[in-house]
Amino acid sequence: MCRWLAYSGAPIHLDEVVLKTEHSLIDQSLHAKEGATETNGDGFGVGWYGKRDMPGVYKDIRPAWNDSNLHALAAQIESHLFFAHLRAATGTAIQRTNCHPFQYENWLFVHNGTVREFQTVKRDLVFAISPELFTEIKGSSDSEILFYLALTFGMAEDVAGGVARMAGFVEQVGRQHGVEHPLQMTLGISDGQHLYAFRYSSEGDTRSLYYSDSIEAVKDIAPRAHEFSADARAIVSEPLSALRQVWIPVEESSAVMIHKGDVEVSSFVPMAPS
Amino acid sequence: MCRWLAYSGAPIHLDEVVLKTEHSLIDQSLHAKEGATETNGDGFGVGWYGKRDMPGVYKDIRPAWNDSNLHALAAQIESHLFFAHLRAATGTAIQRTNCHPFQYENWLFVHNGTVREFQTVKRDLVFAISPELFTEIKGSSDSEILFYLALTFGMAEDVAGGVARMAGFVEQVGRQHGVEHPLQMTLGISDGQHLYAFRYSSEGDTRSLYYSDSIEAVKDIAPRAHEFSADARAIVSEPLSALRQVWIPVEESSAVMIHKGDVEVSSFVPMAPS
Amino acid sequence: MCRWLAYSGAPIHLDEVVLKTEHSLIDQSLHAKEGATETNGDGFGVGWYGKRDMPGVYKDIRPAWNDSNLHALAAQIESHLFFAHLRAATGTAIQRTNCHPFQYENWLFVHNGTVREFQTVKRDLVFAISPELFTEIKGSSDSEILFYLALTFGMAEDVAGGVARMAGFVEQVGRQHGVEHPLQMTLGISDGQHLYAFRYSSEGDTRSLYYSDSIEAVKDIAPRAHEFSADARAIVSEPLSALRQVWIPVEESSAVMIHKGDVEVSSFVPMAPS
Amino acid sequence: MCRWLAYSGAPIHLDEVVLKTEHSLIDQSLHAKEGATETNGDGFGVGWYGKRDMPGVYKDIRPAWNDSNLHALAAQIESHLFFAHLRAATGTAIQRTNCHPFQYENWLFVHNGTVREFQTVKRDLVFAISPELFTEIKGSSDSEILFYLALTFGMAEDVAGGVARMAGFVEQVGRQHGVEHPLQMTLGISDGQHLYAFRYSSEGDTRSLYYSDSIEAVKDIAPRAHEFSADARAIVSEPLSALRQVWIPVEESSAVMIHKGDVEVSSFVPMAPS
Repeated sequence: MCRWLAYSGAPIHLDEVVLKTEHSLIDQSLHAKEGATETNGDGFGVGWYGKRDMPGVYKDIRPAWNDSNLHALAAQIESHLFFAHLRAATGTAIQRTNCHPFQYENWLFVHNGTVREFQTVKRDLVFAISPELFTEIKGSSDSEILFYLALTFGMAEDVAGGVARMAGFVEQVGRQHGVEHPLQMTLGISDGQHLYAFRYSSEGDTRSLYYSDSIEAVKDIAPRAHEFSADARAIVSEPLSALRQVWIPVEESSAVMIHKGDVEVSSFVPMAPS
Repeated sequence: MCRWLAYSGAPIHLDEVVLKTEHSLIDQSLHAKEGATETNGDGFGVGWYGKRDMPGVYKDIRPAWNDSNLHALAAQIESHLFFAHLRAATGTAIQRTNCHPFQYENWLFVHNGTVREFQTVKRDLVFAISPELFTEIKGSSDSEILFYLALTFGMAEDVAGGVARMAGFVEQVGRQHGVEHPLQMTLGISDGQHLYAFRYSSEGDTRSLYYSDSIEAVKDIAPRAHEFSADARAIVSEPLSALRQVWIPVEESSAVMIHKGDVEVSSFVPMAPS
Repeated sequence: MCRWLAYSGAPIHLDEVVLKTEHSLIDQSLHAKEGATETNGDGFGVGWYGKRDMPGVYKDIRPAWNDSNLHALAAQIESHLFFAHLRAATGTAIQRTNCHPFQYENWLFVHNGTVREFQTVKRDLVFAISPELFTEIKGSSDSEILFYLALTFGMAEDVAGGVARMAGFVEQVGRQHGVEHPLQMTLGISDGQHLYAFRYSSEGDTRSLYYSDSIEAVKDIAPRAHEFSADARAIVSEPLSALRQVWIPVEESSAVMIHKGDVEVSSFVPMAPS
Repeated sequence: MCRWLAYSGAPIHLDEVVLKTEHSLIDQSLHAKEGATETNGDGFGVGWYGKRDMPGVYKDIRPAWNDSNLHALAAQIESHLFFAHLRAATGTAIQRTNCHPFQYENWLFVHNGTVREFQTVKRDLVFAISPELFTEIKGSSDSEILFYLALTFGMAEDVAGGVARMAGFVEQVGRQHGVEHPLQMTLGISDGQHLYAFRYSSEGDTRSLYYSDSIEAVKDIAPRAHEFSADARAIVSEPLSALRQVWIPVEESSAVMIHKGDVEVSSFVPMAPS
């Protein structure tokens, strides 16, 4: 039950988004307005694409609001595509390896939600991860398992397909164990070029997710972004209330793909493995 | 702007108080009801007297609610007199040396409140600490300075007198620097035998503090305490709401001293150094 | 490639062993003499049995030598049976959930050694853990997997048998993957009553392990232990050099069981599952 | 008793220096060859100048060798002038605010050495810091006090003069307290344009310090630096042994100033305040 945001556009310093705005991530870590939990203090992470092939990731188990490093780093790091995530743990350990974004090769992945009765279904889910990805698992959270399942099911070649097969599999396993609504998720995913987001839950009542399709909404989270590019776009768990009207809710059971200012929205349907 | 509690009575395991109750310290760390800040997630500490001369202290900068060690330790540590404290930082660094309780020899000290315009008055306050105590300062918080000032002004021989002279000095220095209301404090102090508490602020509007003078109120924070002794007493920043009537507010500008079940309340007046 | 010790005898404060001796655990964390790595700074843990049914555990990822909490806690905690462990990581993440001792119900478990080519064999090992124990896995280390495998193979009913079947299974899986010497281990295990230790490696060249069968050797790690009981016993990765002669090496491929001052040594042979 | 290095030249990624070389900072944190302590595991820090006015700083109390964030950050951060520092504490708390580099406005400062009998002289030293800088003190180490004393004595206008007056004052205060050799230091300082280093101790036996005056030595710590510029220069506590001849020892009681590839060496004499 977390908060996250993603930015795609001209390179900006992370502090423009993470620290300087009225309803910044830091502020959200203390006073989330729409989340299932008000305090998101069980660690945080930022992941960004810079000049190198691999993205950078910085995570800590402290609350974001009291990390001196985050302030210093966000003022220095510039990126055209990045994620920030605040964790509110749902039962698994508070450790860096359970913080988002999760990274594998050039991929970054953030999740807000839960795999219901995770301890019941975990073993079946973990065993479905391909052997070469199995050893990449470093933590104990449900979110990391979703990431490696999606990669197992082909996300690297077909993002929407891999995620759909992952969601279908999680629902299938959950229902085999008698879980009524196995999956609740908003996801943010990137390969460094495209920014993907998904909003889906088995019960059709998924946590909030919004996107901007104009520079106006981005100003809400990055006030100076328009100085740099007209095609900056963003995705957020929760918009700044004062400018709520400029944010567009991602509909239930849908996917968003952002690339160079273009926003494509499509419906999302889990695919059960045959 | 923190939360704290103190217990005095038959030895009990700390988890009876810290973890198991409906409105436990852990719960308060997420949802304080009367504090100036709702989230108290900038570290915590417990300090307790056991069989040895020196008290034990355990502190961490994590939020109390996600520390696996705290759960394990509180289940093992038994004490007849202990403090637990949740920190909500007011501008100084998040580090163990700024977490409460502060300890010096057999003394423990917790504070909820603030020295107003601390950065302005800090130098004058620090310079008034006696040279042999000066080198004991390990952190950068206002609370630690209050502790060593009180010791400098004779707290070890006369608790109420030392605290009164400390408060008078802090007000004197503050007013010299044009601070209207220099001091806001509730304090919990012990030498291992007696439990002291103070409620005072320059503006006469001090944060809440309550004590129990019967076993009934203690049941509120330690449901099984009555099984062990009839003279258990407690002091809390904030009582469990359901049993509010059994808690007695500490009046403005007053001091409480608890010893073997006896509770003495007296008025508290700062003494300006001559 | 770690260091550990275990104590069984009259209750003593942990600091007698962990902090006060010439070649204490703290000193060993900086300057191990016989270990494969000289610095053991990747976290530490203590686990102890007190008055309650469940043991207490305290772990941190800091080096033991700079943890202020460890000093304060070891001075307060009294135990008749405890472990202390220093970690030198062999490739898995530095996080509390990878620190020893591992605990499950009334069991504590410490390990010095390695499962060779762990990333290759991990999946097969993890899948052999019984489903009800699978969800107890919190970290990513080889040692934790050995613990839950031993429990899966019946350690709770038959300690030596469970460990033998675990070792046999790890060797079987390793050899199926072409690993010449799959297992290297010294183990310390307790149910709260008995203290068990094992020294075994596939190559017959296991890291050092010593036990005391008299109070003389225990004085080496707990100088005042003889004041309390004549039947105190200890097991250590590495003795204090000055008194080396009082320590008895645990032979290759053998097991030690200590109970109320009695020490039984027997040979240890892995049992391959049929 | 720490290790540090500084780089000045064409912008390079920090991992070129911090992680990738044979005798990298990470390696030095485990196996320093010339330091007074072999293990430098009490925290670390990097400070760098990028595109912004203020330098970035990243510090943690973990040993450098096990910090996953450091690896990820050093691969992303590019800088033309940076410091890296490994701490081996000499008695003060392990906390981020005691880690180097210390930063004030555009200044960065690292120290290897000690103020002898610091607890005895600390009060006199702290009181000499100018009131406006006094409130910047966040930690409890001797090194931070040296930094703010040098700023108090005019370092921002005249680096060599400020440092000389600081050193003279520290010696004066120490000798007033009967300390024979009050000061031991190598210092690295920058304003973002120039790189300064000092080697001095009261006893004339200062810890090692080396500089490069050609690109050859820099290759030792940054193998690919020559691809980018011929005027890269570096300063190190301890050179890579294999290329020792390319490093030039900084003489006792001398100062080094590096600017755009030019290296000026001058003698350094403390100036006692009149």
